[in-house]
Amino acid sequence: MYKVNKDRLNDKIKTYSTFGNQGNGGITRFSLSPEDILARDEFVKRMTAIGAEITCDDMANMYATLPGSEPGLPRIVTGSHCDSVRNGGNYDGILGVLAAMEVLETIATDKIPHRHPITAMIWTNEEGSLYPPAMMSSGVICGKFEKETMLASKSAEGVTFGEALENFKYKGEEKNRLNAKDYKAMVEMHIEQGPILEAEKKEIGVVTCVIGMCNYRIKTYGQACHAGTTPMKYRRDALYAATLLLMKLREEFEKLDPALVYTTGEIICHPCVHTVIPDFVDFSIDARHENPKVIAEVVKIIESLPKEIAKCKVETQRAWGRDTVYFDKELVEIVQKTTDEFGYSNMRINSGAGHDAQFVSQMIPTTMIFVPSRDGHSHCTTEHTSIEQCVQGANVLLNTILEVDKR
Amino acid sequence: MYKVNKDRLNDKIKTYSTFGNQGNGGITRFSLSPEDILARDEFVKRMTAIGAEITCDDMANMYATLPGSEPGLPRIVTGSHCDSVRNGGNYDGILGVLAAMEVLETIATDKIPHRHPITAMIWTNEEGSLYPPAMMSSGVICGKFEKETMLASKSAEGVTFGEALENFKYKGEEKNRLNAKDYKAMVEMHIEQGPILEAEKKEIGVVTCVIGMCNYRIKTYGQACHAGTTPMKYRRDALYAATLLLMKLREEFEKLDPALVYTTGEIICHPCVHTVIPDFVDFSIDARHENPKVIAEVVKIIESLPKEIAKCKVETQRAWGRDTVYFDKELVEIVQKTTDEFGYSNMRINSGAGHDAQFVSQMIPTTMIFVPSRDGHSHCTTEHTSIEQCVQGANVLLNTILEVDKR
Repeated sequence: MYKVNKDRLNDKIKTYSTFGNQGNGGITRFSLSPEDILARDEFVKRMTAIGAEITCDDMANMYATLPGSEPGLPRIVTGSHCDSVRNGGNYDGILGVLAAMEVLETIATDKIPHRHPITAMIWTNEEGSLYPPAMMSSGVICGKFEKETMLASKSAEGVTFGEALENFKYKGEEKNRLNAKDYKAMVEMHIEQGPILEAEKKEIGVVTCVIGMCNYRIKTYGQACHAGTTPMKYRRDALYAATLLLMKLREEFEKLDPALVYTTGEIICHPCVHTVIPDFVDFSIDARHENPKVIAEVVKIIESLPKEIAKCKVETQRAWGRDTVYFDKELVEIVQKTTDEFGYSNMRINSGAGHDAQFVSQMIPTTMIFVPSRDGHSHCTTEHTSIEQCVQGANVLLNTILEVDKR
Repeated sequence: MYKVNKDRLNDKIKTYSTFGNQGNGGITRFSLSPEDILARDEFVKRMTAIGAEITCDDMANMYATLPGSEPGLPRIVTGSHCDSVRNGGNYDGILGVLAAMEVLETIATDKIPHRHPITAMIWTNEEGSLYPPAMMSSGVICGKFEKETMLASKSAEGVTFGEALENFKYKGEEKNRLNAKDYKAMVEMHIEQGPILEAEKKEIGVVTCVIGMCNYRIKTYGQACHAGTTPMKYRRDALYAATLLLMKLREEFEKLDPALVYTTGEIICHPCVHTVIPDFVDFSIDARHENPKVIAEVVKIIESLPKEIAKCKVETQRAWGRDTVYFDKELVEIVQKTTDEFGYSNMRINSGAGHDAQFVSQMIPTTMIFVPSRDGHSHCTTEHTSIEQCVQGANVLLNTILEVDKR
């Protein structure tokens, strides 16, 4: 088994934590920002130093490729994104890029023989922090999103993604895009972003799928009246109606499979004045489970909600959803075998969060490797994965790629 | 029994509905605004026409006084406010001013004998729409609020009440303030702002008090985590905790006196993103009842909430409260007797909303007369009281004042 270099990987983590450093332990590094350029300049510097060839495509996705020994073979690619949410951490996304760089550096430095070209990648705008949606570039490359629509995506400051891209140093050509002909497989290493591996005391998560989900908006309509002058019996209180629905949904969801996760993260109350009975409430429901039958049950529960509750009209609107995306079985088995050979404690895990890999998997065989997130934290300054855990993940990544290379 | 002039009162309602007309059936007429000046100019025009003397005090409260036949007697005053909330209606406050003007016009035109001077009044900034708090000027005159603090109250545009007052046409002198020596009593006519009179098919509400209340903020603290990656058992969901508290409070409050009203009008959820488990929720509780023992039970329930629920920390904060303010018993009886003599259907009612009268009652004998609000609506463009109901209220007001004049 080949091993990556712990100090070199640690040095990359430390270096990248300065690109967008917020002085509070975390970073803000939006796609196409000056901080993003720092991250990419460093990528070019380190990859050029080992003789990798750098290319960029029209969405500014970046590719650093070490040639293989057999001409004409497709590339094996590994990578992730280097953009963050506002006040994010030093691991989400970027760790997958740093591990990819570490894999190429190890292969180059240790002169590890390989037949296929090996590519380290940066995906542009995975978070969609300034320019929604998330996973924008993998969505475009894989045909999920219309490029023109994405170019028109506007930041809060009124700048479009297209305008920012036009002025971006690393915008390249469409012909350089990842594609099914020139690429053999992709493996993305990522932090778990949840508490399971840590709670189960596992070092590696062998990811099998990105789980399916449904997303609803539920709205209640009442009558705004004065909080002091309206007896209880005359009220049509939209927030009370919403509270009843939240309790009812919870009660029903609790009867379903315990692996189901469901969240109301957003609730909007109108007019939101403490002396006025609310006339309108709008809340979100996000529910996720690997098994589409469970999601179907969730949908049935939501769509069977009463049309009126506490004298308030109820509306349910499906916002969006996705089916479970299963990763390539052979690749998952290779990750499993590699992890076992290292003797790392591990478990099969699914991804509750979306990743570029889920779109790429529609085009070429793809899988993911998870390392633990301390306390399950992610998208915040306290994101943390120990250097030992990062090394373990990168070791699995390196040997998985080398195994794919043999096949 | 003397009667007011329906057409003249109706003409005033129509005229005043043009001062701040929003073209949607309602008005926006903030205190000290150009629309406020239109309303006060009209007050001066109509009151001067009947020979009333106009004075203003240092808070721009306006007084129009018809002299009485016996020198040296204190004034009997009636009035309300002419400012509105944003997109308010044509009745809240202003109807009390128009009825006061109508009372003076009837007394002058019909040459009704009276011993005391009779004063029609406009209170400045009752709504506190631009410059909080509500009932600002009556609060200053009656010693509830510090004048300097009120002058510093700032609008969203950054203008202070003091600056606006300095430039206001009707700012007068402190010596002109309503006071306990020169004023005998105040009667304020107002719309109910609730649905009770209409539901009970009553024409007049004989108001006995402004009910006491308590106001709390309740806060729950959880842990923000990814909605997709965090199993239910690991969650500390601040919104779920808040929902449990809302249900628990409701369940307890329902056991108390049925006249208790309680409202959660405001709920704030952080970070309020549909894919993130909320880490903080803050909601309001407003509870009102005439009997302080019932309010004490409410407070006990709120303060006995668990300090932790669903693994989230709970905090309760008393925001403010007020004790029930009872109106002058003799004045209430005069309103009752006058209403009965007219044969108007009526009921004793309390005021769930605050009014200038509640502050004035700390200084001189005070009471209120309510007329119905269609559908209980108030603080909105659909506020409505029929002209017949307005006339009935003004008739009771006129004869109440004339009865007070005799005593």
